[in-house]
Amino acid sequence: VYYVGIDLGGTNIVAGVLDEDYRMIGRAAIKTAMPRPAKEIIADMARAIVQATENAGVFLDNVDSIGIGTPGSVDRETGTVMYAGNLNFSNVRIVDEMRAILHKERIFLENDANAAAAGEYYAGHGRGKRSFMQITLGTGIGGGVISDGRMLIGFNGAGGELGHTVIVENGEQCTCGRKGCFEAYASATALIRQTKAAMMSDPASKMWEIAGGLDRVDGRTPFDAAGSGDPTAREVVKQYLRYVACGITNMINIFQPEVLCIGGGICNQGDNLLLPIKQMVSLENFARNCNRQTDIKISSLGNDAGIIGAALLCKLA
Amino acid sequence: VYYVGIDLGGTNIVAGVLDEDYRMIGRAAIKTAMPRPAKEIIADMARAIVQATENAGVFLDNVDSIGIGTPGSVDRETGTVMYAGNLNFSNVRIVDEMRAILHKERIFLENDANAAAAGEYYAGHGRGKRSFMQITLGTGIGGGVISDGRMLIGFNGAGGELGHTVIVENGEQCTCGRKGCFEAYASATALIRQTKAAMMSDPASKMWEIAGGLDRVDGRTPFDAAGSGDPTAREVVKQYLRYVACGITNMINIFQPEVLCIGGGICNQGDNLLLPIKQMVSLENFARNCNRQTDIKISSLGNDAGIIGAALLCKLA
Repeated sequence: VYYVGIDLGGTNIVAGVLDEDYRMIGRAAIKTAMPRPAKEIIADMARAIVQATENAGVFLDNVDSIGIGTPGSVDRETGTVMYAGNLNFSNVRIVDEMRAILHKERIFLENDANAAAAGEYYAGHGRGKRSFMQITLGTGIGGGVISDGRMLIGFNGAGGELGHTVIVENGEQCTCGRKGCFEAYASATALIRQTKAAMMSDPASKMWEIAGGLDRVDGRTPFDAAGSGDPTAREVVKQYLRYVACGITNMINIFQPEVLCIGGGICNQGDNLLLPIKQMVSLENFARNCNRQTDIKISSLGNDAGIIGAALLCKLA
Repeated sequence: VYYVGIDLGGTNIVAGVLDEDYRMIGRAAIKTAMPRPAKEIIADMARAIVQATENAGVFLDNVDSIGIGTPGSVDRETGTVMYAGNLNFSNVRIVDEMRAILHKERIFLENDANAAAAGEYYAGHGRGKRSFMQITLGTGIGGGVISDGRMLIGFNGAGGELGHTVIVENGEQCTCGRKGCFEAYASATALIRQTKAAMMSDPASKMWEIAGGLDRVDGRTPFDAAGSGDPTAREVVKQYLRYVACGITNMINIFQPEVLCIGGGICNQGDNLLLPIKQMVSLENFARNCNRQTDIKISSLGNDAGIIGAALLCKLA
């Protein structure tokens, strides 16, 4: 038996086929090519699935289930994407439409951050753990919390928005309407904003040269410049890591998960990210004198977490 | 069958007996009378239980189980109070000692904030709800999260510390060692600190007269003065309510519980507390466009939540 997952993104539609050991044995990608109608995107999702199964040498009949990870908010029961801004989706009954094209009944839908958490829970650092959470530091901050095979989604399905918890009361404007969210301080987008502000205030910073201009700043810029000794960049990284540690400590004090994984592009920094975070959390978390501490790790699945997790949505209680 | 609960506090040991409909049919209280050895306190807990069953006209043999709610951190499996500062308890095997005195096997131990949440979940506003949380605004901020009959305690038993989530990065020093915790801004203790600071900066404030001096300020002072039109008090209350709403919105964005109860002494303010909080949460929470919203209520059990919840700890999965 095989499992198929789709990671639907604003840039690419990627489908993957997993075997019973949750190894990816085939994949296919099609450009999302926005803007275009939902119907066309869904047709291409079906095409990507067919291609991925062909690449894996698997018959669609032998696929147990299909899982879809999508940006935005979902209604799992009706298989509807309620709203996804970057896809221009509003109340799209994606599961029904996929069923009509592929003639497969078992199709699951989940928010992409939750799907990525499910991937890491079943096929990565969460394997065999009772309680697990993942925090993805990307364009925004996504999160997923899973205990005993159950995803935290709340009674209305809108829970698990870990990025939209305020850590700086009345602080930076967040896209969600609040001010001072974890996302507004610790996402890659926030780091880029903080980096640009620091560059503006220090025309001598190495960050100018490393980035090659203000418009070319990305999440690597301050880390690279800090590594080469630039004091302004060091300050940016130091404060950014404080924000990340602050939000992670908050989540640990609430959930005390056995494992907490950090995902997203910023994870490419490896130990430059992980070690200072672990250090700060170990000093501050409420259970610091407990003999069992949350293990903080960098996501093991990288960009594939979303596809793998989507494929394994069928496993969730 | 009957259930016995004990609320062990720094001032009083209160025992209560519930009938099968979770109504309190007898109670007894003994002064905690600190400082004294744990052994004496435990002996008085047993005495309070015996008195309460006598007052209820119930034989101890007909008591299904006994639950203990204690301040501090607990190990539920070994029935040990790991640490409770205000009781001067450190690694006290309270359940074994109670078993030895009362010859009852089924004795459960829980942190008092979690016990209060369990009370409201089984016998108050949480009755029949799938997911529930309670936030207690007292000397500190305690919390309890219960879904499908399971309490959120984390893999090491130290979870659910909702009050120790930072809402003001690098803000006021908290007793937990962090800076800027929800507890450091929205507990009754924090409100008193904020009130005193405002009084110092405004010698003409009515709060001086209403409190009768700086040392007599309590959680009611700013609310009473605001009610009588004092502008400085109004500002204190307004900002305090912003902090409370900030922390509550954080929790709703994470958990989206069907019902969220607010407990603790500040709840005596009733609608002066509840209505502005509801208003702010409804404007800010991530699910504000969802057709199902968390119902925010003031705890229905008041001071008895801890006793009732302790008695019903046997119901938790």
